[in-house]
Amino acid sequence: MENFTYYNPVKIVFGKGTISQLGTLIPQGAKVMITYGGGSIKKNNVYDQVVTALKDYDLIEFGGIEPNPSYETCMEAVELCKKNNVDFLLAVGGGSVLDGTKFIAAASRFKGEDSWDILSKCAPVDDAIPLGAILTLPATGSEMNFFSVISKNATKEKLHFGCPSVYPLFSILDPATTYSLPQKYIRNGIVDIFVHVIEQYITYNVHAPLQERYAESILKTLIEISPKLLSNKIDYDTRANFMWCATMALNGLIGCGVPQDWSTHFIGHELTAFFGLDHGESLAVVLPGVWEHQLYNKTDKLSKYGQRIWGLSHSSPIETATIAIYETENFFRSLGMPTMLSEYNITEKDIEKVCERLKNRGSKFGEFGNIGSDQVREILLSRI
Amino acid sequence: MENFTYYNPVKIVFGKGTISQLGTLIPQGAKVMITYGGGSIKKNNVYDQVVTALKDYDLIEFGGIEPNPSYETCMEAVELCKKNNVDFLLAVGGGSVLDGTKFIAAASRFKGEDSWDILSKCAPVDDAIPLGAILTLPATGSEMNFFSVISKNATKEKLHFGCPSVYPLFSILDPATTYSLPQKYIRNGIVDIFVHVIEQYITYNVHAPLQERYAESILKTLIEISPKLLSNKIDYDTRANFMWCATMALNGLIGCGVPQDWSTHFIGHELTAFFGLDHGESLAVVLPGVWEHQLYNKTDKLSKYGQRIWGLSHSSPIETATIAIYETENFFRSLGMPTMLSEYNITEKDIEKVCERLKNRGSKFGEFGNIGSDQVREILLSRI
Repeated sequence: MENFTYYNPVKIVFGKGTISQLGTLIPQGAKVMITYGGGSIKKNNVYDQVVTALKDYDLIEFGGIEPNPSYETCMEAVELCKKNNVDFLLAVGGGSVLDGTKFIAAASRFKGEDSWDILSKCAPVDDAIPLGAILTLPATGSEMNFFSVISKNATKEKLHFGCPSVYPLFSILDPATTYSLPQKYIRNGIVDIFVHVIEQYITYNVHAPLQERYAESILKTLIEISPKLLSNKIDYDTRANFMWCATMALNGLIGCGVPQDWSTHFIGHELTAFFGLDHGESLAVVLPGVWEHQLYNKTDKLSKYGQRIWGLSHSSPIETATIAIYETENFFRSLGMPTMLSEYNITEKDIEKVCERLKNRGSKFGEFGNIGSDQVREILLSRI
Repeated sequence: MENFTYYNPVKIVFGKGTISQLGTLIPQGAKVMITYGGGSIKKNNVYDQVVTALKDYDLIEFGGIEPNPSYETCMEAVELCKKNNVDFLLAVGGGSVLDGTKFIAAASRFKGEDSWDILSKCAPVDDAIPLGAILTLPATGSEMNFFSVISKNATKEKLHFGCPSVYPLFSILDPATTYSLPQKYIRNGIVDIFVHVIEQYITYNVHAPLQERYAESILKTLIEISPKLLSNKIDYDTRANFMWCATMALNGLIGCGVPQDWSTHFIGHELTAFFGLDHGESLAVVLPGVWEHQLYNKTDKLSKYGQRIWGLSHSSPIETATIAIYETENFFRSLGMPTMLSEYNITEKDIEKVCERLKNRGSKFGEFGNIGSDQVREILLSRI
C-alpha cells in the first residue's frame, strides 16, 4: 500500500426531510447567497423547502449556473457576492452548481489579478467564502470533496482546481429531491460514478485489498440498482443508494493508498470543451478506448475486475481483461448511452484539435504518465 | 436506508516514516504532553521518532496508561495537564492510550464537580484540550472516532462517552510501529475489528447494499490476512491492511443509515470490568451467545453473512445462519482465541453479578432493545 493522507471534514446530512435542518447548519446571522442552475428547483419544491428553512436569514440568490459551469457566469456571481457582502454560499443543485459555487467562493476572496489563474496556473486559494450544499443530482461527488471543474466559453477550455478551503461545511442529501430528474441525467450519473470508481481501481496492484473491495462494492451496487433507477417506478431506497454510491465514489476514500489514473476524465473534458458532449457521455466514449490502449499495463486489475464484477472465468488474464472491456461497454449501452465518437458525428479532423491542445500543454495522463497527445490520438481514433 | 448524519474531521496520515511529519501537524509553540502506556514505545524506537520530530516543542510526558485505561490513572494526568498548562495532547499507543487521552482532554477542561459524570451521567463535554494520536496497535478504531471507554477501578465499572470535541486532529498510522506487537495483541485486535463490523452489519435489512458490502469487504480482508498476521513472518503490506481495516471498521462510515446492535460490546465490557478479560477475549465469548439467542431476529442478515463471507449454501436461511455462527466461532478459535466462559473459570455465580448490575441500571441492549438482564443471563449461561 502506498502512503497517503486522508482528510475530509464535510458533514453529510442524509435522508428524507433533511432540508429542514438548514437553519442548524448555516451560521446564524449570515448573509446567504443561494446558487442554482436552470430553475428546476423552483418546480420540484426544493427551492420552497430551502426558503422556508432559511426564513430568518438575509437571502439573495443567483440562478443560471449551467451544466459545465462557465467561468463567465461564475464571475457574474462573484460580482454579486462582493457587492452584497455575502458571507455564506448555499449551492442547490447538481455537481455543476456545486462546482460553480466552489469557484465563486474561491474567486470572491482571490487576491490575484485574474481569477482564471486559479484554474490555469494552480494559483493558491488560501481563503474562500464558506459554503454548504443541497445535492439534487447524484453523479460528481462534489458534495463531499474539494474539487471543482470550470469551463471558459471564450477559449473552450475545461479545467479543474481543488483546495481544502472549498470543502462544503455540510451537504444535505435528500434522495427525494432526485424524483423529478430526467432519465438522461440518471444515465449520465451512473456512468460518471462508475468511471470515478474505475479511475481509482483499474491501475496496478499495490496490495490494498480493502480499497479494491470498496471500489467493487460501489460498482456492484451501481450495476444492481441501475435497472430500477432507469425504470419509471421511482422508489426511495433505490434513489438513496444511488446518492450514497455517488458520494462514496469520489470523497477520496477508495483512492487512499492506491495509484490513480484519471486519463479518461482528462480526455473526456476536452470532448466536452470542444464538442459539447455531456460529461458522462464523454467518459463512456473514452474509457473503453483507454482500456484497449493500455490493456497490457492494466491486465491484472482488468482481469480481477472481470472476475469479481462480471463473473468472468476465462483461462488467461488477457482474455478475461479483454472481455471485461466489452462487458463494460455493453453495460453503458444498456443504459442507453452511446459509446462511439461517430455517434456524435465527431471526425478525425476534430480529434486533431484535441491532440494539438494537449501537445501544446505537454499533458501526460494515466498512472504511469505515459498517455500524451500521440496516445490520445490513437485512443480517440479507435472510438470513431 | 435510514436517515443519518456523518461527520469525521480526523486527518489520517498513513504510511512508512510518517511520524516525522508531526511538526507539521501540531500547532507551533504548543505545550505538548505525550501520553503512552507501559513503555513499549521506548523499546521499539517509536518514542525516539516522536521526540526527534518534536525537538522544537516544549514537551512533558505521562506514561503508564494501562489496558482498559482507568479513571484513576487518567485523573493523575489531568492534574499534570492543569499544573503545566498543557495545550496539546499527543497519544502514542493503542486504543487504551487513545481512549485515556480523550478522557484526559475532556476532563482537563470539564467545568462540573466530578469528571466521572462524563461517563456515568453523559455530562456534556463542550471543550477539550486538542489532541492527536500515533497509533501502534490496530484494533479499537479510536484513532478515527470520538469515542472513549474508561474503567473505574474503585467500582469495577467500564463505561464510554463520545463527543466531537475529542476527535483527534490527526492520527498517524505507520504500520511499521506494529512490528514488535506480541501475538496476543494481534489476535485480540482481529477479533475486536471483526466484531466492530458485525455490530453494524448483523441486524436487519434496511435496503442499504453498499453499507453491507463495505462491512463484508472488511470482514473478507481480515479473514484473508489473519494467517499472515499471526505468522512469524512480518510484512509491511499485511500490517498496513490490518491497520486500515481497524480504522475503517469504527470510523462511523459502515454504520451510516443502518441499524446497529452493540450488545456484544456492552456485555463484554462487564466481563472485562468484573473478571479482567481482555476486550477482544470478552467479545469472542459473547458474540456467539448473542447470535444464538437472537437467531430468529437476525436470520436474514446471518444467512446473507454466511453465504457471502463463509461461502455457505444451505437450503434454509435458518440453517445457513446457524452454520454461520459456528464458522465464526471456529474462526476465533483458529486465531488461538478462547470462546467459552469456562475457559476463564467464570461460573454461574459470577454471571449473576453481571446481571444484577445490568438490572439495577435498567440496561436494554441490541437493535431492538430487547436484551435486558434476564436475556444477558441466558446468553452468558450458554457460554459456560
